[in-house]
Amino acid sequence: MYLASQTPNAPQLSERISRLTSSLVREILAAAQAPGMISFAGGLPSADAMPVLRDTATSHDWLSPVFQQYGQSEGEPLLRARLADWLAECGMQVSPQQTLVLSGSQQGIDLAAKLFVDPGTPMLCEAPTYLAALQAFQLFGANCIGLPLTDEGIDPAQLAHMIETHKPRAIYLIPTFQNPSGHCYSAANRQAVAEVLDHYGLPLIEDEPYRELMYDEVDRTPICSLLKRAPWIYLGSFSKTLWPGWRVGFLAASPDLFPHLLRLKQAGDLHTNRPGQIRIANWLACKERNNDLLHLRETYRKKRDAMNDALTKTFGEIADWETPAGGLFFWLKLRNAIDTRPLLKIALENNVAFMPGEAFYPASAIQHGNMRLNFSHANADDMKKGLAILAKIIEHNKPDN
Amino acid sequence: MYLASQTPNAPQLSERISRLTSSLVREILAAAQAPGMISFAGGLPSADAMPVLRDTATSHDWLSPVFQQYGQSEGEPLLRARLADWLAECGMQVSPQQTLVLSGSQQGIDLAAKLFVDPGTPMLCEAPTYLAALQAFQLFGANCIGLPLTDEGIDPAQLAHMIETHKPRAIYLIPTFQNPSGHCYSAANRQAVAEVLDHYGLPLIEDEPYRELMYDEVDRTPICSLLKRAPWIYLGSFSKTLWPGWRVGFLAASPDLFPHLLRLKQAGDLHTNRPGQIRIANWLACKERNNDLLHLRETYRKKRDAMNDALTKTFGEIADWETPAGGLFFWLKLRNAIDTRPLLKIALENNVAFMPGEAFYPASAIQHGNMRLNFSHANADDMKKGLAILAKIIEHNKPDN
Repeated sequence: MYLASQTPNAPQLSERISRLTSSLVREILAAAQAPGMISFAGGLPSADAMPVLRDTATSHDWLSPVFQQYGQSEGEPLLRARLADWLAECGMQVSPQQTLVLSGSQQGIDLAAKLFVDPGTPMLCEAPTYLAALQAFQLFGANCIGLPLTDEGIDPAQLAHMIETHKPRAIYLIPTFQNPSGHCYSAANRQAVAEVLDHYGLPLIEDEPYRELMYDEVDRTPICSLLKRAPWIYLGSFSKTLWPGWRVGFLAASPDLFPHLLRLKQAGDLHTNRPGQIRIANWLACKERNNDLLHLRETYRKKRDAMNDALTKTFGEIADWETPAGGLFFWLKLRNAIDTRPLLKIALENNVAFMPGEAFYPASAIQHGNMRLNFSHANADDMKKGLAILAKIIEHNKPDN
Repeated sequence: MYLASQTPNAPQLSERISRLTSSLVREILAAAQAPGMISFAGGLPSADAMPVLRDTATSHDWLSPVFQQYGQSEGEPLLRARLADWLAECGMQVSPQQTLVLSGSQQGIDLAAKLFVDPGTPMLCEAPTYLAALQAFQLFGANCIGLPLTDEGIDPAQLAHMIETHKPRAIYLIPTFQNPSGHCYSAANRQAVAEVLDHYGLPLIEDEPYRELMYDEVDRTPICSLLKRAPWIYLGSFSKTLWPGWRVGFLAASPDLFPHLLRLKQAGDLHTNRPGQIRIANWLACKERNNDLLHLRETYRKKRDAMNDALTKTFGEIADWETPAGGLFFWLKLRNAIDTRPLLKIALENNVAFMPGEAFYPASAIQHGNMRLNFSHANADDMKKGLAILAKIIEHNKPDN
C-alpha cells in the first residue's frame, strides 16, 4: 500500500507527506500489544493506578443533553476555570481566558507546529526528546536542532549560543521528568533558561505530561511561569494521571500567541469532546483528588523501585542509568554504545519490546547505545523475565562478538 | 491582543498564520448565542431531534476500564466494523481497514489539507461551499477555485475544463444537501462527475455530513462509490444525526491515500476519544436506530416546512429560493443582489443572526445577494418574528434607498 504513490498515475501529494517519518514506532507499539509480549516500549499508564470513574450527586452532569450539543472551541467554561486554579497550584498565574482545552496534549504540539513552522524553520529541542514531537515538527518541515541534556537540564550558555547561531523560531522543552531521559531540570537551571529565553524573546513550548508522577521531591516550577517577556505555550495532559482514552488535554499561552492557537484549534477539530471535559472538570474539584494522586504516585514509585532492582540484577554490568525521580521511563546508557535498533527485531522475536534510543534524537544528533524502558506496564514477574531476556540479547550482540 | 504580532519584539510565526482568515464567523456564532438572539446563523442540530442516550444491557460497556486506556489511531475495531456495514448500506463497499475514526469530520478536512496542500496548490471546490473547509484549505495555502453550482450539481464539461486549466491536486464536493445551498446532485450528474474525475485521476474529497437529514426522496449515491480509478476520501459525520458534543466522525479512503491519512491522524491527536466511539458503535447496532432516524427526519421536515411558509410570507417578494430536500439550511437569493455583510451588524443589533452568503465563496468568486438561513434552531414563533425583522432590514437597505 505504501508503494502506491510511486505508480505512474499516483496523486500528487503535498511536500510534507514526503516528511512523514517511518512507521517504526507504530510498528513497535503494535507489536508490543501482541499476546504474550512483555512490553517496555510504550508509555501506557497502569490500569491499577488510574482513578476510578466516579459520578457523585454533586458532579456536573456530563450526560446532560446540553453537553451532547456543539460546544465552544476554547473549551467548557467550567473546565477552563478549574484549569486556571490547577495551574495556580502549579505556580502559574493565568486567567481562564488563557487556557485552551485540547483533544489530548499531542494536539497542542500539532497546533504549535502550525503556529511556528514553515519548511526549513529552525526549532530547538532537547536531544533526546519526545519522538512524536520531533515527528510533528518535522512533518511541517522544521529543522530540529538538539541541545544535549546535562545533569542540571540544559546548559544556558550553549542555549544562548544555539539561539545566536541558528536563529530558531521557538524551543520545545520537557523540563520535568523528561521523555525519554527522565531528567528533571534543577531550580537554578529553570531560572537560567528562563533568563536566556527572555533575553532573546524566544518562544518556549513547555510540555509537562508527567508532572504529577513525582516519586522523589524535586523542583517542578514551570519555566513558563518564570518568563517575563518571551512568548510561551504550556502543554498539560491528564493522560498520565487520569484516563487517556478520553483525550482531554490543555494548553495555556501568552496573550500574543493565544488567539492564533484558538483559531488553529477551531480549524482543526472545532472543539474537544464535552463529556470528557466535564469528567475532568469534576475530578479537578472532587474531594478524592489528592488521594487519587497519592495513590498514583505510590503505585508507580513501587514499580519504579522494582524496576530499579531488576535492572541492577540484569543490566548492572552492562549499562548505566539514573533512577528517575518521576515519569514512566528508565533511560539506559549501554557501556558498549551499539546501535540498539537492530536489536529490536531480535527482542520482538523473543517476545520483549523496548524503544531504541536512536528514535528520540533529531537526525543530526543521533547517538547510539541508549534504550528507553517503561516501568508502568509489565507486572513484577514479567519485568524480571523481560529484562533478563533483553540483557542476554545485548551481551550476545557486543561489538566484539 | 490580535495586534501583538505587529509589535517590534513579536515572535516570528509561520507564513500560514497570515492566512488565518478573519474571525467573522466565530464572532457571528458567538453573537448568535447571546440571550434573546434569534439565530438563523449556525448549523446546530435541534435538541428535540437528537436521539436519547441509551445504555442497554446488550451495549458494549463504554465505561469499562479498557476504554479509559490509550487506543489505536485507526479507531476502535468494533466501530470500524460497524462503519463498514453502515457504508455498505449507503452503497459503498469498503473494508473496516479502509475506515479511520476522526475527532469530528472537521478533522478529516484538516487531514486532507495536510495531505494535498502546499502554498499555492490549486484546489477545486463548489462556489459557494462550506466555509470552514475553505478556511482549512486556505490555511495551508491552497488556491481554492470555485465551480458554480447548477440545478443538477456541477457541469461536467466545466469541471473538465477547470481541471485542464488549473491542474488542481484534488476537488472538494458536498454533493448531498450541499452547504450552504441545499443542492443535491442528480443521479446522472453524480455519474458524469465520477467519469470526469476518473478520466483525469483527480482525487475527490466528498463531504457528507447531512446525508441522513433527507426530507424528500432523492438519489444520494456517494460519488466515491462510482469511482473506478480516481483516489478518494469520503468524510462522514454523526454530528447532525446524533450528538455533536462527543466529536466522533470518520473517513473512508482509497488504499493509495489511507496510510498517509492514518499517520497524519496519529501525529495530530493520537486517537479519538474511546467512550464516544463505543457510544456511536452501540447506536449503529441498536434496534432503535432506524426509528431514531425517522424521528429526526420527521422533526426537521416539519421545521423546514414551517420555515418555507414563513419565508413565503416575509421574503416572497424580495427573494427566491428552492425548498431544500434535506440538510439544515435555506439559501436565499435576494432579487436586489446587495452585499449582505453590512446588513449583519444591523440584524445583530435587532437580535437576529444570519450568515451572509459572501462568506461561502472563495475570494475570487464572491457573489452578492445570498443569505444562508438555518431552520433547525429557532422555535416556530421566533422563526416568524426573526424573518419579519430580517426582511424589513433588507427592504430598508435596497440599493435605491
